[in-house]
Amino acid sequence: MNFASDNVTPVCPEIQAAIDAQCQGNAPAYGGDDVSATLDHAFSDLFEREVAVIPVSTGTAANCISLSTLVSPYGGIVCHHEAHINEDESTAVAHFTGGAKLLPIDGPAAKLEAATLSTYLESRVDRGVHSVTPECVAVTQSTELGGVYNKDEITAIGDVCRQFDKKLFMDGARFANAVAALDCSPADITWKAGVNALSFGGTKNGALAVEAIILFDTSLREKAELARKRSGHLLSKHRYLAAQLAAYIQDDLWLKNARNANEAARELAILLKEQGGELLINGSANELFVSLPDGTAARLRECGLVFYNWPSLGRQAYRFVTAWNSDIDAIQALKTRLQHG
Amino acid sequence: MNFASDNVTPVCPEIQAAIDAQCQGNAPAYGGDDVSATLDHAFSDLFEREVAVIPVSTGTAANCISLSTLVSPYGGIVCHHEAHINEDESTAVAHFTGGAKLLPIDGPAAKLEAATLSTYLESRVDRGVHSVTPECVAVTQSTELGGVYNKDEITAIGDVCRQFDKKLFMDGARFANAVAALDCSPADITWKAGVNALSFGGTKNGALAVEAIILFDTSLREKAELARKRSGHLLSKHRYLAAQLAAYIQDDLWLKNARNANEAARELAILLKEQGGELLINGSANELFVSLPDGTAARLRECGLVFYNWPSLGRQAYRFVTAWNSDIDAIQALKTRLQHG
Amino acid sequence: MNFASDNVTPVCPEIQAAIDAQCQGNAPAYGGDDVSATLDHAFSDLFEREVAVIPVSTGTAANCISLSTLVSPYGGIVCHHEAHINEDESTAVAHFTGGAKLLPIDGPAAKLEAATLSTYLESRVDRGVHSVTPECVAVTQSTELGGVYNKDEITAIGDVCRQFDKKLFMDGARFANAVAALDCSPADITWKAGVNALSFGGTKNGALAVEAIILFDTSLREKAELARKRSGHLLSKHRYLAAQLAAYIQDDLWLKNARNANEAARELAILLKEQGGELLINGSANELFVSLPDGTAARLRECGLVFYNWPSLGRQAYRFVTAWNSDIDAIQALKTRLQHG
Amino acid sequence: MNFASDNVTPVCPEIQAAIDAQCQGNAPAYGGDDVSATLDHAFSDLFEREVAVIPVSTGTAANCISLSTLVSPYGGIVCHHEAHINEDESTAVAHFTGGAKLLPIDGPAAKLEAATLSTYLESRVDRGVHSVTPECVAVTQSTELGGVYNKDEITAIGDVCRQFDKKLFMDGARFANAVAALDCSPADITWKAGVNALSFGGTKNGALAVEAIILFDTSLREKAELARKRSGHLLSKHRYLAAQLAAYIQDDLWLKNARNANEAARELAILLKEQGGELLINGSANELFVSLPDGTAARLRECGLVFYNWPSLGRQAYRFVTAWNSDIDAIQALKTRLQHG
Repeated sequence: MNFASDNVTPVCPEIQAAIDAQCQGNAPAYGGDDVSATLDHAFSDLFEREVAVIPVSTGTAANCISLSTLVSPYGGIVCHHEAHINEDESTAVAHFTGGAKLLPIDGPAAKLEAATLSTYLESRVDRGVHSVTPECVAVTQSTELGGVYNKDEITAIGDVCRQFDKKLFMDGARFANAVAALDCSPADITWKAGVNALSFGGTKNGALAVEAIILFDTSLREKAELARKRSGHLLSKHRYLAAQLAAYIQDDLWLKNARNANEAARELAILLKEQGGELLINGSANELFVSLPDGTAARLRECGLVFYNWPSLGRQAYRFVTAWNSDIDAIQALKTRLQHG
Repeated sequence: MNFASDNVTPVCPEIQAAIDAQCQGNAPAYGGDDVSATLDHAFSDLFEREVAVIPVSTGTAANCISLSTLVSPYGGIVCHHEAHINEDESTAVAHFTGGAKLLPIDGPAAKLEAATLSTYLESRVDRGVHSVTPECVAVTQSTELGGVYNKDEITAIGDVCRQFDKKLFMDGARFANAVAALDCSPADITWKAGVNALSFGGTKNGALAVEAIILFDTSLREKAELARKRSGHLLSKHRYLAAQLAAYIQDDLWLKNARNANEAARELAILLKEQGGELLINGSANELFVSLPDGTAARLRECGLVFYNWPSLGRQAYRFVTAWNSDIDAIQALKTRLQHG
Repeated sequence: MNFASDNVTPVCPEIQAAIDAQCQGNAPAYGGDDVSATLDHAFSDLFEREVAVIPVSTGTAANCISLSTLVSPYGGIVCHHEAHINEDESTAVAHFTGGAKLLPIDGPAAKLEAATLSTYLESRVDRGVHSVTPECVAVTQSTELGGVYNKDEITAIGDVCRQFDKKLFMDGARFANAVAALDCSPADITWKAGVNALSFGGTKNGALAVEAIILFDTSLREKAELARKRSGHLLSKHRYLAAQLAAYIQDDLWLKNARNANEAARELAILLKEQGGELLINGSANELFVSLPDGTAARLRECGLVFYNWPSLGRQAYRFVTAWNSDIDAIQALKTRLQHG
Repeated sequence: MNFASDNVTPVCPEIQAAIDAQCQGNAPAYGGDDVSATLDHAFSDLFEREVAVIPVSTGTAANCISLSTLVSPYGGIVCHHEAHINEDESTAVAHFTGGAKLLPIDGPAAKLEAATLSTYLESRVDRGVHSVTPECVAVTQSTELGGVYNKDEITAIGDVCRQFDKKLFMDGARFANAVAALDCSPADITWKAGVNALSFGGTKNGALAVEAIILFDTSLREKAELARKRSGHLLSKHRYLAAQLAAYIQDDLWLKNARNANEAARELAILLKEQGGELLINGSANELFVSLPDGTAARLRECGLVFYNWPSLGRQAYRFVTAWNSDIDAIQALKTRLQHG
């Protein structure tokens, strides 16, 4: 069982079928096809308001194109130190925005807290053109450490952003896992809470390679489309992106996949605790950060489990990521086997 | 029959099968998988020398990442006015290179000619830091107007580049069509002719979305990989790019597909000439630029043909692009029907 | 006599005095001083409307910061092939604007013509995100070849810009020479004609190093000030820039200096024609482009004249630039001497 | 007495004289003049080895052009949180380098410590293209909080840089004050300690507006000159920059000026301590950070002293900056007056 990451997974059957269905016949390029034409409507339904949808094939592209519509080349983006945009996307944010600067702060489980954010924004002295003015706040939902912002938490952050006149961006590479964990409406933890733009992730949760930039301010669409083309992210056979996205949200496939991942994480957490593990982060999505007793990691790996050491959380810390295809039965079977081991 | 472009086509069966084959089981992300590991070797075989292969999902990414390894932010790139990088890629070249400037010149069939290039380079007065120094020459093979550089032509351009100490880049979005038309080895019209980097196109010729950056100077690999990540073009499920490419070059699929496209173009050219059409550009690949008598375009469209007006070549000019899936029998049947029409 | 360029000249006495006057006592940095505070008012008087003034120390900075307030990273700037921003500023325009592309066209004496511009803008096919949309038109007054736009000409260009919804920028490195030549009000050939931003040059016409960005749309001030700081062009001892500018426009010093340059050019033109020279460009400012008979250039150089060959205009073409300190008596004396030579 | 900053000062007499001396007669532009030609030699003498000198007119330009020669667009620059490049230069570093990221760490008196730096570099996990690799370390001498690196300290940092294969850059906006404080040779605390490039500040210490980029690796000269032109920092009347620099280092004027500033700081420190002040930072250059008892700041301001509150160091913290023109006699007179107050 591979818990190295959720991006080790293959394409899920429903999305594979949607891709295969596009392998017959010609269709207009660059989004002129029939499936691409359905996206705005479908996502507007999903989010209970008009949105603009811009599909791209990577999370870095989705995040950075979104941010480039929200901040100027002279501005700052407040985020958590652990944020993917800060730690895992090379210098992409500066590249796409023309120089905007990441301003990392701290918080538990890689989550920003409204009070900390407010204090930070309050404490920054505006020294005019000399200093970098924060223009945007970026959160990840669920976070890089498996944390989930509940509706109140994200609303509180949105309130701080409104109060300080900052934009709010959400990196939702694992947005599905958060919605599944919270059992809430997507609207509740995005635009209703003050989120201006969202990267709606697909790849980690069953797609081949697709993330949707969701703009709650549809007037940003033109700029996002220009930025997408300029950065080489407009696919000519755009229908293959669109088909993935359409299948992904049809019949709540995205939530079905995420629920499996989250449930697998819960099962795996039980197993790990039984083996002496201690959860280092309190999360409800599909990532576990666990401290394991001496020898346990080796024993689990002998059982075929694949997972990473996570030294930034301690010498005996490990990360396990479950996914849409994690076999819950197999986890339970292993749990039983180890109980009797 | 759709001759609007070769990017209206679906994925071809062999590549679809290769994608489907990746839809079982997990595999390491970011190129750590088994298929990705085969690419350097497979392309080194194809090109008869060691090359570095960097797959990306669009032609703009392939072109601009390649160029960013060849030119500085202060340099110039000589290309044809009609070049895709000059006319169809927004301001992507400046974005990826940090500011390098396109220096467009003219030539028949969107081809640069060695003599013109030499004269141009000779005539540029170097005014030190004030002026932009050409650092690279970019050609498209086959060109945006369906032209094909034969081995002697591209070698002559490579010689000029060497003489003036310029890098040579080839946009090969339709490289397959050129190789099929010339019936040459890929090596002959690339590195043996002096090409430093090549965008080896797959998407237009049967893939879902993949282009391979081929670096003949493998020391450029690290820079290209950094540029790929920084621009959001490193796919996490990299194996899906790799699988497309591997299938694409296996058993000469890329040439089989291109040959169908080129033959369809030849058949279509006969049909169009019979209908009074006149070829405006002498090409041997899969694009036809044709002047049609009054009423002919409308009549062909009534027969179900889809194609673009091409006003830059004249009021009665049209472009027809054939592809890997063009139905040659159907073209011939239409031709016969029109003969008896 | 040095006619190599007007930037070989020293600082003129009035501006030297203004600099010296700042060499006593402390004053707030970064524009907080008394002299800096006077600039907006003084230039608003000069231009007969409210303007925002942003002083910088080079023409490249003035041009490119101005342009960065008028165009997006995805846009184009229509200019003459000979424009300083196209030929003499490295890749600065792309650097400051984040990638905007220069779209050079032709015209006599390095001047754009309204009809040509209109035809050009009309002929550009808008292919959405693929193509670069012209967002701005840039003219140079007086031009790089000594041409001067009169009020009607620049108004006609402004009309075309309004019609096509393009911004209009004026590189006025030699704006003073144009105003002196036309004997018009600065307002007439700038904002009244539709100019949105102007580089108001000082360095070539007697200053040490100062150009004023004049924004006729004062809402652009903040962006320009951010761009100035970000590019390292905000001087801490800002009062030295301000003092130069204040002295430069006081009592019409800028026009007095320009008139001397222009008159010297007229005298020099007479001399050169008497020596068999032929004016290649019809200009009324301070640059002469002259074809000289065999041997004449050498003879003039023996007389102590310094000037450049200008091969782009022909084998026997030369450029002579007069300046605020050109000695008209000495030119006349030489003329007389050569008449009797 | 104005202790707000050292950039409130005017030009010192010797440099004023050097500027005035250039106000007679013409001279070649863009560095072709006689004074510009002397700089490399003069600074090579000063630094006891061959150096390349690139004068610019601001510290931001000097810092960022230097850094652009040392780091790639994908790299990181380790610096102190308080570093001018991190806190006071907008997003200039990203702008000039094409995206390089500042990686701020802590240390006393705004100084990096070799051990901290080593630990930091050791602890960074290299995750290939995903993470930003530190390529350069930047120190400020003397620091933004008045700290001074002695020869051993900077040598230790240079050793860490060599060990980890990082470049070392020094922002020397107040380099003169450090050299004066240490009474060392400039070589000892720069290239002999491992510094690759230095911003050698002039403006704060008596110049009008000049900083010299000193490249100890002269092969970087071409890149720096291209970057200077591209960013609009090549002055046409370059001799005015050169004249300032030449006068600045002639007869150790730079050290004479710095010694006055440093001595004034020592005198002022005595005065402030007598008034109940407590030095918050242990520095030996020309900046004092002092905590003052209630009411003292107001009383000093009534005596005509100008200085800033410095809230980041505490509610009762203040900054005093002395300069080349600080009147030591006047400080002593005030001290006496207050003693008897």
